[in-house]
Amino acid sequence: MTSVKGHAHHGLNLDLAMRADAKRRLQSIRGHVEGILRMLEEDGAYCVDVLKQIKAVEGALGRVGDLVLRSHLSEHVVTAAARGDESRMVDELMELLKYR
Amino acid sequence: MTSVKGHAHHGLNLDLAMRADAKRRLQSIRGHVEGILRMLEEDGAYCVDVLKQIKAVEGALGRVGDLVLRSHLSEHVVTAAARGDESRMVDELMELLKYR
Amino acid sequence: MTSVKGHAHHGLNLDLAMRADAKRRLQSIRGHVEGILRMLEEDGAYCVDVLKQIKAVEGALGRVGDLVLRSHLSEHVVTAAARGDESRMVDELMELLKYR
Amino acid sequence: MTSVKGHAHHGLNLDLAMRADAKRRLQSIRGHVEGILRMLEEDGAYCVDVLKQIKAVEGALGRVGDLVLRSHLSEHVVTAAARGDESRMVDELMELLKYR
Repeated sequence: MTSVKGHAHHGLNLDLAMRADAKRRLQSIRGHVEGILRMLEEDGAYCVDVLKQIKAVEGALGRVGDLVLRSHLSEHVVTAAARGDESRMVDELMELLKYR
Repeated sequence: MTSVKGHAHHGLNLDLAMRADAKRRLQSIRGHVEGILRMLEEDGAYCVDVLKQIKAVEGALGRVGDLVLRSHLSEHVVTAAARGDESRMVDELMELLKYR
Repeated sequence: MTSVKGHAHHGLNLDLAMRADAKRRLQSIRGHVEGILRMLEEDGAYCVDVLKQIKAVEGALGRVGDLVLRSHLSEHVVTAAARGDESRMVDELMELLKYR
Repeated sequence: MTSVKGHAHHGLNLDLAMRADAKRRLQSIRGHVEGILRMLEEDGAYCVDVLKQIKAVEGALGRVGDLVLRSHLSEHVVTAAARGDESRMVDELMELLKYR
């Protein structure tokens, strides 16, 4: 998936500051998933507590998604007409937002 | 479903077979999150690819949630009237299903 | 869909007070949909305003759904074990909550 | 896309063909809501049948939303950099997509 230049895609890479933020959040999400795994080891784990934790992780993932989406909109989508790849940009977004 | 000690709640514990399945799925989710973290290290990572992976993890988490929810409904909710904790069961579920 | 006794379903009917509340809300939702239809007649209708109104109607529908769901849980699901139709109750709920 | 007078915003109006399609769909949604209102009049209305109809209307509304969103992305968002209103376009979209 890496390449030196003109890479796999089209030069539409992740913004660096956003990338660092997304990484921190995903590391915390990984820790949260490990916490749920530990919960499942406990004798007395209660379904609703597990469901609440799963929902919290979904919320955290949604916030990473929003971060990446905002960056994608700002960096790539609003400039699509100038680049000439607007139909690709729109199709990709619509596919992503389905059932979101 | 009841047990003598070791749980904070009220004997409404996770079903064992479901618990094993949920653990396998959460381990795979942890691996998927680590895969996204590796993607973010790559120079050429493209926003939409990251968003697709986040969406896939959300889907996988939703499936674990469905597993736990189905087990909770079957094991605990349908028997609530007999136990007498129906208003607690209903309030908990409604809170969980908000914005789901 | 009506029937005199033992009706189409199984005597699991809508709670009356909840039903009145749901009707009031659905009448308001119908009015809101008509408002969006009028918006679409206007020359200057802006996409984002239409999308906001659609989202508001979705929220209002979700609130009617929550009302009916809470009533269903309280009146029918928590008593399922006593009636003996728990697997039907659970399957129906899981089907409804998919992608919710 | 531009027009001289008659709109509050900034010349970013709804595409005409999409508007006709959205109107047809919203008229059908209004009819569907009226159908649910009629269901609620019936003695034997069953919660789960009402919930299924509400979910169907939510799906139909989501499809109108997708139609308007796709048109907005294609007509207004991909050209935002050229117009210079990209931060407004992005903020509006992010607000709309919250909890979507």
